[in-house]
Amino acid sequence: MAVYKAPLRDMRFVLDEVFNATEFWQSLPALADVDRDVVDAVLEESAKLNENVTFPLNRSGDEEGAQFSNGVVTTPKGFKEAFRQFADGGWIGLGADPRWGGQGMPKTVTVMTDEIMFGVNPSFALYPLLGIGAALAMSQHASDELNDFYLPRIYSGEWGGTMCLTEPHAGTDLGIIKTRAIPAADGSFAITGTKIFITGGEHDLTDNIVHLVLAKLPDAPAGSRGISLFLVPKFLPNADGSLGARNGVAAGNIEHKMGIKASATCVMNFDDAKGWLIGKPNEGLAAMFVMMNYERLSMGIQGLGASEVAYQNAAAYARDRLQGRSATGVKTPEKPADPLLVHPDVRRMLLKTRAYNEAGRCFAMYTAKYLDLAKYAEGETARAAADRVALLTPVAKAFLSDRGLEGCLEAQMVFGGHGYIREWGMEQYVRDTRIAQIYEGTNGIQAQDLMGRKVVKNNGAYVDTYIAEMRAAAERLQAPALAGLKAAFTQSIDTLEQLTRAVIERAANRPDEINAAAVDYLQAFGLVTFTYMFALMATAAEPRKEDEFYAGKLALAEFYVARILPELDSRARAVEAGAEPIMQFAESYF
Amino acid sequence: MAVYKAPLRDMRFVLDEVFNATEFWQSLPALADVDRDVVDAVLEESAKLNENVTFPLNRSGDEEGAQFSNGVVTTPKGFKEAFRQFADGGWIGLGADPRWGGQGMPKTVTVMTDEIMFGVNPSFALYPLLGIGAALAMSQHASDELNDFYLPRIYSGEWGGTMCLTEPHAGTDLGIIKTRAIPAADGSFAITGTKIFITGGEHDLTDNIVHLVLAKLPDAPAGSRGISLFLVPKFLPNADGSLGARNGVAAGNIEHKMGIKASATCVMNFDDAKGWLIGKPNEGLAAMFVMMNYERLSMGIQGLGASEVAYQNAAAYARDRLQGRSATGVKTPEKPADPLLVHPDVRRMLLKTRAYNEAGRCFAMYTAKYLDLAKYAEGETARAAADRVALLTPVAKAFLSDRGLEGCLEAQMVFGGHGYIREWGMEQYVRDTRIAQIYEGTNGIQAQDLMGRKVVKNNGAYVDTYIAEMRAAAERLQAPALAGLKAAFTQSIDTLEQLTRAVIERAANRPDEINAAAVDYLQAFGLVTFTYMFALMATAAEPRKEDEFYAGKLALAEFYVARILPELDSRARAVEAGAEPIMQFAESYF
Repeated sequence: MAVYKAPLRDMRFVLDEVFNATEFWQSLPALADVDRDVVDAVLEESAKLNENVTFPLNRSGDEEGAQFSNGVVTTPKGFKEAFRQFADGGWIGLGADPRWGGQGMPKTVTVMTDEIMFGVNPSFALYPLLGIGAALAMSQHASDELNDFYLPRIYSGEWGGTMCLTEPHAGTDLGIIKTRAIPAADGSFAITGTKIFITGGEHDLTDNIVHLVLAKLPDAPAGSRGISLFLVPKFLPNADGSLGARNGVAAGNIEHKMGIKASATCVMNFDDAKGWLIGKPNEGLAAMFVMMNYERLSMGIQGLGASEVAYQNAAAYARDRLQGRSATGVKTPEKPADPLLVHPDVRRMLLKTRAYNEAGRCFAMYTAKYLDLAKYAEGETARAAADRVALLTPVAKAFLSDRGLEGCLEAQMVFGGHGYIREWGMEQYVRDTRIAQIYEGTNGIQAQDLMGRKVVKNNGAYVDTYIAEMRAAAERLQAPALAGLKAAFTQSIDTLEQLTRAVIERAANRPDEINAAAVDYLQAFGLVTFTYMFALMATAAEPRKEDEFYAGKLALAEFYVARILPELDSRARAVEAGAEPIMQFAESYF
Repeated sequence: MAVYKAPLRDMRFVLDEVFNATEFWQSLPALADVDRDVVDAVLEESAKLNENVTFPLNRSGDEEGAQFSNGVVTTPKGFKEAFRQFADGGWIGLGADPRWGGQGMPKTVTVMTDEIMFGVNPSFALYPLLGIGAALAMSQHASDELNDFYLPRIYSGEWGGTMCLTEPHAGTDLGIIKTRAIPAADGSFAITGTKIFITGGEHDLTDNIVHLVLAKLPDAPAGSRGISLFLVPKFLPNADGSLGARNGVAAGNIEHKMGIKASATCVMNFDDAKGWLIGKPNEGLAAMFVMMNYERLSMGIQGLGASEVAYQNAAAYARDRLQGRSATGVKTPEKPADPLLVHPDVRRMLLKTRAYNEAGRCFAMYTAKYLDLAKYAEGETARAAADRVALLTPVAKAFLSDRGLEGCLEAQMVFGGHGYIREWGMEQYVRDTRIAQIYEGTNGIQAQDLMGRKVVKNNGAYVDTYIAEMRAAAERLQAPALAGLKAAFTQSIDTLEQLTRAVIERAANRPDEINAAAVDYLQAFGLVTFTYMFALMATAAEPRKEDEFYAGKLALAEFYVARILPELDSRARAVEAGAEPIMQFAESYF
């Protein structure tokens, strides 16, 4: 009953007209060969595969869920075949190095296929995603020998991958993990411990699963500086890649969750499991962060993708459902009532969701551009891009997933009571999207990362360059039709700048100011960033505004500025109120 | 694993110290006999029953759900026994007229037992609630004969009740319902049609179920002025109350929903069912609104109750869970990490939820006070109170359920990944509470009711008296410690006043301005109202602020003003932006 068409027209607008992708790729020698026609074909094929194969499995996957029995996880009907099709189409290695069988596509391409994949079926998307993340961490830290052996098997979908961080008592605080790694005579390690919340820790989609596991070596320093990363395969492979003995790792159970029910979230028990060190001893957390940063953008995109699907369904419902009459007079006298779309508040909900989606898609692409620059450019350009990525990653993860959930909630509300029952699928988008705000570091942790490590720690240096870039973009809003947007954007930049300075100043004397400001600051940062994205889109659209597609871009920017951006001031004032109203309470108060 | 203690201390603070309940009751002859000690016993017993009997059934009820088979609905294990205990304790008739076996307790009492009942198990609470609502509508519109026969049986829990409004094509827009009522020779009517979303339409808790059904008489005027209300029992009773033949009404199915899974939401098929007219022909909607207004406050209280349970669990978790270290230095060196409570952002989430709960509880009592005045006072006092109730009902329903969901979401987030799995119960509070924003008129419809019927239609008369009352309350904030609150409250009243005038003015020329402003206006109204509630609580608490309980009240008011109230300005600016940014889009845009 649910509908979905990949928003290819909007994606191409962002890719070509906002970011001039072809020019961008040609500016980087390593990407000079990316062929615009091939990218188009990739988008078309991704749309087709996901609309026709994985989207129809979204609801049945939710109904059936991943099943656990005696250490074995069975994925819902159809997942195995879909995963095979997905793997055989080369989608798992789409962004991977051709050296290991990848397609070598830049992030500025995979960010779009990720949106489609996550939008239509997040539970399904998590299975390949974790493998891609694990492979990425390995590619940067493991030996050539391990990489050449494992990565082609992961990218082909022959084997899966996981990241094993969390333990029952250690979530955000990985410094206190208890899993141990004891060196063996042959250079390997014996890993023992319990990990929880392991996405895809066990399943029936691949022959083998490659676990990346955080553990402590004997005599490792206490805390986060004493954590190492290990590769632990489910089956110990023989030299030719055939499967040998079962390793000492098994799923003890799966979690019953609010959503993403088709994704197996496992308790993993490691019992003298054989593993190999990845990277240097005690530097496992840094290696793992490569993977986590990659995942973090994807979790933001999960929110965006879901909100897009939710919007499309809500818009279709609002066009079809007849209920009440327009306040300005009957619009469809031949029918018993007017369509929902005549009601301003229904439009408000739809437009809010759509504004989040369009700005979010542009922001995802913007972040992807800097990920590509950090990876494929050289020297100062690459270094500066890495700083920008560091600044934007927590915002992309948290703000996109926050507004993604809000979009899903608004779209659900358009359906009234029909949105609460399973039949229309809207309630599943809400349940599934909620996890994106929680996993891979809660959005509160993302905000703390932004406010502490990315802003206060460098005295605002990363923000300063971002603000300078935004000011230049505001200057480019020359057309008279964009005067309102220019004024609002300029003012919002001022607000962000003042806010940044205020927190840095206060934090010097009172460390609690950082965490007290964090969430509201991230929201303010995101609201200004979305304004920036509307400025970029409006700049691209304005010259062609006679065409209704482009006129719609300008109108949506106007809606955003008028009806959503005012939130910025309230966030700023909440930040300015500081830590005292929060910290004045004794612990016994709670 | 979940914890809950009814917040009796806070309830008594609101009842006695903020609203001087005893004095209030004694000012009304009909309530002069309400005994404060009896009320205390009622609260204690309600706490005991719900903490021990219905609360433990909340999660198992969700897991098991209501089951449907061949027209029969089976409630989850334990529901039958709990319902019997509930009925035998006189809880269904707690607020009912003693003439029909009720306890005659005022709303200023039942508002508290409602919070407890809805907080611990909303699915369970809906079964008695619908019977109470049906009985209330009957008591005001049905003949003595029908009332004397049916009401004692509903209030004793012998029989249940429902309200049958919605049809597949008609939700908000009841004017287009298709269910027909054909007069029979004996003065009864034959009802035929399909109703959906009927809470408790079928179940195994009572011997009989009394349906109140909206239907159209032959030749009834089109639209909402041609709707009549009928009483349709599941079994046709004999004169002695024993059950006769099965009537032509049966459940066709139950819905599978996001939450409140133990509540049976039924499709009801009426096939020449025998019914009796309630009230006058074609005036059924007005009669039904008596019931709906009653339910609406309860739906707001559902949000409040859930948010209270969620808070209590999140606070307990934040005290116990060790994760990370305080930014201001290690707080518990003897432990591997500090409790979550040391982190400002965790406190922010808890305090936000708690501020919503304390202000919400006060607002529920405030509304209850006016419901009591409207019912038990006389003359101008009763009339003015009815106006106030009309103004506040949509705010109480929507704002309390909106902030209730937000509270549940914040509390869930305190748990991180553990909040997303079923084990801790937090995700159920979110799923269950979401319906409170949707049913009994979506919160968008509540906002439209407020903005259109309760504000613009009477040219702001209801708001004016409310604002005058708030200004007087602000003047009473004389203590120096309350100067900040006084300034913020006064400013927020100014904002609401300006906003109200602005919308009324604009709506004169453009009817779409009403619905375009509605939701943001209701949120602004709610935020100012919560400030009013904090002002009332602070006024009561300030003289005793040496005691930490009262000091906590003042500190929470300070937190609210500093960190939550700033949202008011953003809502005001969104309203001021008007309808144009929303209505400029062609229908084809969506």
